Amino acid sequence: MNTTRTAPVPASQVRDWAAETDVIVVGFGCAGASASIEAARAGAEVLVVDAAGGWGGASAMSGGEIYLGGGTPVQKACGIQDTPEAMYDFLKLATGPGPHEDKLALYCEGSLEHFDWLVGCGVPFKSGLWTEPCWEAPTGYGLMYTGGENAHPFADLVPPAPRGHIVHMEDKRPGERSAGWMLMSHLVSTAERSGVMVRYGTRTERLVVDGDRVVGVGAVTFGERVFLRARRGVVLAAGGFGANPVMLAQHSPRLLGNWLVGTDHDDGGAIRMGQAVGAAVRHMEAAQAAFPADPALLFRSLLLDVHGRRFINEDTYPGRVGQAALFQQNRKVFILYDEAINEELQRTGGRAADPTWVSDDLAELERRMRIAPGVLAGTVEMYNANAEKGEDPLFHKSARWLRPITPPYGVLDLRDAAFGIFTLGGLHTSPQGEALDIDGAPVPGLFAAGRTTSGIPSWGYCSGTSLGDGTFFGRCAGRSAAAR
Amino acid sequence: MNTTRTAPVPASQVRDWAAETDVIVVGFGCAGASASIEAARAGAEVLVVDAAGGWGGASAMSGGEIYLGGGTPVQKACGIQDTPEAMYDFLKLATGPGPHEDKLALYCEGSLEHFDWLVGCGVPFKSGLWTEPCWEAPTGYGLMYTGGENAHPFADLVPPAPRGHIVHMEDKRPGERSAGWMLMSHLVSTAERSGVMVRYGTRTERLVVDGDRVVGVGAVTFGERVFLRARRGVVLAAGGFGANPVMLAQHSPRLLGNWLVGTDHDDGGAIRMGQAVGAAVRHMEAAQAAFPADPALLFRSLLLDVHGRRFINEDTYPGRVGQAALFQQNRKVFILYDEAINEELQRTGGRAADPTWVSDDLAELERRMRIAPGVLAGTVEMYNANAEKGEDPLFHKSARWLRPITPPYGVLDLRDAAFGIFTLGGLHTSPQGEALDIDGAPVPGLFAAGRTTSGIPSWGYCSGTSLGDGTFFGRCAGRSAAAR
Repeated sequence: MNTTRTAPVPASQVRDWAAETDVIVVGFGCAGASASIEAARAGAEVLVVDAAGGWGGASAMSGGEIYLGGGTPVQKACGIQDTPEAMYDFLKLATGPGPHEDKLALYCEGSLEHFDWLVGCGVPFKSGLWTEPCWEAPTGYGLMYTGGENAHPFADLVPPAPRGHIVHMEDKRPGERSAGWMLMSHLVSTAERSGVMVRYGTRTERLVVDGDRVVGVGAVTFGERVFLRARRGVVLAAGGFGANPVMLAQHSPRLLGNWLVGTDHDDGGAIRMGQAVGAAVRHMEAAQAAFPADPALLFRSLLLDVHGRRFINEDTYPGRVGQAALFQQNRKVFILYDEAINEELQRTGGRAADPTWVSDDLAELERRMRIAPGVLAGTVEMYNANAEKGEDPLFHKSARWLRPITPPYGVLDLRDAAFGIFTLGGLHTSPQGEALDIDGAPVPGLFAAGRTTSGIPSWGYCSGTSLGDGTFFGRCAGRSAAAR
Repeated sequence: MNTTRTAPVPASQVRDWAAETDVIVVGFGCAGASASIEAARAGAEVLVVDAAGGWGGASAMSGGEIYLGGGTPVQKACGIQDTPEAMYDFLKLATGPGPHEDKLALYCEGSLEHFDWLVGCGVPFKSGLWTEPCWEAPTGYGLMYTGGENAHPFADLVPPAPRGHIVHMEDKRPGERSAGWMLMSHLVSTAERSGVMVRYGTRTERLVVDGDRVVGVGAVTFGERVFLRARRGVVLAAGGFGANPVMLAQHSPRLLGNWLVGTDHDDGGAIRMGQAVGAAVRHMEAAQAAFPADPALLFRSLLLDVHGRRFINEDTYPGRVGQAALFQQNRKVFILYDEAINEELQRTGGRAADPTWVSDDLAELERRMRIAPGVLAGTVEMYNANAEKGEDPLFHKSARWLRPITPPYGVLDLRDAAFGIFTLGGLHTSPQGEALDIDGAPVPGLFAAGRTTSGIPSWGYCSGTSLGDGTFFGRCAGRSAAAR
């Protein structure tokens, strides 16, 4: 018997099964919950195991945005036109390079039905379009742009529509339960009503195989090693690998030194268990990288690289700005703004930003920022001259956010700021949720969903695509696992 | 029995072994040849199999540069000071993010011994330092800078030393046998003299396993499926995956649409066979990306992004420029130069570059290049004003290459140019050449080297690190495989 931790255990070596069921789902976040509901509804006996002491995973910590479109009731109530085709065209552009076209097609075609399914699980949505720059809309608003749909370059290429559907949460308070918690509470209730059984505090360590077929899991529960048998299939839905520095170093070293949007259980264990039985992985370097500044400040300011030059339209999705800053600029960026911007932030309910340096003199700021003489002055001169005319010929920021900036200038030095990251790479799955091996053939008995897989946000990220593809392809994986 | 192509075959299902030996080496490029020599010298019976009709692989097509240092006889003959520590410090910076420090340490400590080993195999080196910008030095020169050691930022951080040792090739002619061929001819002769057996036209498709242990390979030779038994170990040294568009799409989609520096056999088969028995992979997005212009032109010109702005010192290693242009600029770049540069190219034995557009008027060029008015003029104004003083405050190009450019200006539009690429990601191996599984434990009986693995150039590339780590860690893998 192989003595390494992740290698599969042959079923012949299991003397005692602590439990037996049709389908085992590993992880009780949005993907696992959705998988468990659909597997149970398809007639399977389902056991969910989660390493944590309760349900929710990273999903329950999230802002509860779900990327849906094609003309949902929420979109219609907000007067928004959308089609599955426009949604597909946008996501194909925004999630690349290397979009998963087969998954995208199914996801966009099925989006209206998926909205109804979520509503059927009791997930509350509300209309009300929020268009101010932010990570999360205030209570009472149900729809927002979450991927730069209405900004350059996408707005010029595809008819823009907001598709971030926000789960409604009446008494949301900072630091308390989030809309993601609300989503999860309804999915978990639905799973329990569907007869799904759950074991918390149960960390899955290995898969059990009978020949090539996955037939169960080995887990540790309250200090005891147990084996759990799955007659039909195992669904891995236990999150990404952002909490595993060794995997980060091996696949995406730029992510080290940031902070994880997720839980300690996002340790890549499920991905590794899949790999250990021959499942393939995709896009392991990809990650969401939340830009470490208030989007309301970012949209109105000049975002500068280490040389004092702009590099992206500041008014696109701040996760897109974050990916550009992390992967292309190595996080070495500044924000340049002025008092008028700070006043506007306060007037619109935000907080004034606290600058690292303030000066009337751009040359002085150049010295403090250690950038070449004249570059900052040139950047500001060009920005102001064009902003005066409502234009941004370099990066095409919308006229709504363009205004010449005036002294005294403030600079926010973000060169040491950590980004909020989570990983997007993972197991290669079919649109039906089957884990695929190196040749693209299903690994018998093994299914996966959510951030354990490479899904809709294959490289480029839009808020809501993780809860979106987690729930959508979680359902697919649950149905596939339940099928005999 | 699993019916997919790459999955391992249980030894119990092999009825007939077509051959039996101690060590099987898959691939007869520089890594496989070095592995075979060391395995044979350690007393093992060795069989090399190669899918091609003859030896050499991508190594024999290469320029024959080997990254060696720490004070080699060639460096000393050229009056170059170097230490293993300086070599380590440079490579740690240049091959990141995510350098493999354990491999780097062994590689730098062992470089002098490795030079002697190569010489002992009959590989000819010559002194003579070449310092003109180029991909390959002319015949008669034996040493060159191949990683930007003498350019910003490295020259400011580590004492620079040239470490690209060029295998000597007396009668090199364009399009004919390369110095890489010369390297391979000596390694192959040495292998044959050491008693290594070879089968050409033999494509390895799968590994054969006895429990967890790799005990042979399944291959196709002249239309016939055969199994070859390895009593001690199998060494995978069959190149990268640049010829496999499916793997490129899954791991590094920006590489699609370029041209492969390598052979059709660089199809990732060896990496996939390793994965199929549970071996881990690292840095699968990484790739060398040769910039598609004459380095002699590049060093003297202004390299511009799609917005008309410089983004790197043009005088660093052109593979480093290529990685920046491919991964950060999405290949959308221009070169701006003038007649004096063209005259200098011709005077130094090169060819004049043929511009896409020529004009005395930067505003006209801005329109043709579809960049924002004033940006190109600003770029040239700043470059020229500082070049006059021998300075480049933005990117620190060396004064040797700085000169104001003057009208008429030429622009080379490279936005549709394909880059010469090869992949750098691959199997995770120990410094001893053992293939490691998901938990970092050796896969019994399996070894790997060369571009089938993630090695010295883990992300950033320097010319010569592929022949360098292929031969160095090929030797390690051969010795490990031969050990009982």
